[in-house]
Amino acid sequence: MITLAALQMKSKSGDTAANLARIEQAAKEAVGKGASLLITPELALTGYGAGDVIGELAEPADGPLVRQLQAISSELGIAIIAGFAEKADGSVFNSAVYVDGSAVPVVYRKSNLYGDYERTLFSASAPGTVLFDHRGVKCGMLICYDVEFPENVRRLALAGADAVLVPTALPAGYSGTFIADHMIQTRAFENQVFVAYINHCGADERFTFAGSSRVAAPDGSLLASAASQGEVLMVSTLDPAAFKVSRSENTYLTDIRLPA
Amino acid sequence: MITLAALQMKSKSGDTAANLARIEQAAKEAVGKGASLLITPELALTGYGAGDVIGELAEPADGPLVRQLQAISSELGIAIIAGFAEKADGSVFNSAVYVDGSAVPVVYRKSNLYGDYERTLFSASAPGTVLFDHRGVKCGMLICYDVEFPENVRRLALAGADAVLVPTALPAGYSGTFIADHMIQTRAFENQVFVAYINHCGADERFTFAGSSRVAAPDGSLLASAASQGEVLMVSTLDPAAFKVSRSENTYLTDIRLPA
Repeated sequence: MITLAALQMKSKSGDTAANLARIEQAAKEAVGKGASLLITPELALTGYGAGDVIGELAEPADGPLVRQLQAISSELGIAIIAGFAEKADGSVFNSAVYVDGSAVPVVYRKSNLYGDYERTLFSASAPGTVLFDHRGVKCGMLICYDVEFPENVRRLALAGADAVLVPTALPAGYSGTFIADHMIQTRAFENQVFVAYINHCGADERFTFAGSSRVAAPDGSLLASAASQGEVLMVSTLDPAAFKVSRSENTYLTDIRLPA
Repeated sequence: MITLAALQMKSKSGDTAANLARIEQAAKEAVGKGASLLITPELALTGYGAGDVIGELAEPADGPLVRQLQAISSELGIAIIAGFAEKADGSVFNSAVYVDGSAVPVVYRKSNLYGDYERTLFSASAPGTVLFDHRGVKCGMLICYDVEFPENVRRLALAGADAVLVPTALPAGYSGTFIADHMIQTRAFENQVFVAYINHCGADERFTFAGSSRVAAPDGSLLASAASQGEVLMVSTLDPAAFKVSRSENTYLTDIRLPA
């Protein structure tokens, strides 16, 4: 059982120092509420709509930005997930990093880039199964559009994930509302896992975001639900043992059948 | 573009003659409303909860029951989908048949049986990709628990289905409500196909059903939605061309990426 804090956030476009400071402030508040993990949106550190500036702000996973995040984590005693632009292998990836004090950071790179904006700025990673243990809960990561593909959540669930943690940058509009109101809970239910889907709010120079961050339980119920507008720190308890009955009635992971 | 009629139905347990008569009555009403296809629930002809009687009522797809359904279809000039117990290869399958006048019937056999009740009565088919053309709309079939697996709907969508037609027997309760309120629309949206999910209502000697039949459009919106109780004939227009914009914005089928 863990206590998860999730920051629906309005990142400052292109200003990593301001965004780090905002995350530090939220981490303090999260610790005060008993959380052991704080999750923030896609590209929380650079801003999502910063355009070409994102490439200039890209750093390796052992660069100063992630080291600063580790320092915050160490000082406050809380793990943090944040989206950042990762420079690696001569490319820039849209990545999320899990830092837990001075432990080696865990990095996930987005595999399903959405639209021309992302495809111009980033290289798509091969689909990855990144899992880590957080205080006894097995966690996987995806980023935004990745979670809209049932294949990606299924892969993590079959690999043993209890929770799928998803920084996102979901734009406002009809499809965004549908995804927040129906799809996230379905991904949780059909895999009997927790899904935390944490979005930006407000607008930057290119996008207006849907807010509507969600934390869904294995039975599809909502543990936390943010409004469409405004920053908010949501705190939820993720207790896999509490959903044994749901898993015994919804045996999707053992009942999958594929054509030969 | 087709007009689809869907009968949320209270089958009479073990009474194929009564259920055929009910379907004939609904088919007449459907024709009056301009429909070219009527869809009815899982095991609509035998009743879902009839137990061992279902095995005794099993018939081959070219047996008298399906021939009677074809006669109704021919006489009224409307295609019909109905669930029946199919005797084939020394086994009994939980099947659905599409009849269109005297044309060779199209049969789909359920691959994902749910729970001990179904597994005692039926043999599970290998997952099948059954597609047929109905007045220019490419249709696939699944039955009940099958549609809860994203893999099954994805397979049909990738094979070119415009619409996935799903006779079901969803029990009342928390999970049933979740499936009707979130999962069916998600299956439609994530594949950009129509999904018609047609349930029983009321109760038989073993089960109480959730009603709540749904017809969802490719953009996840509901074209029809039945109450949790009571028989009802729902009529919807399925026009794939009307959802071009949704398909161009939600390019799931071309953006799937799988690990090597």
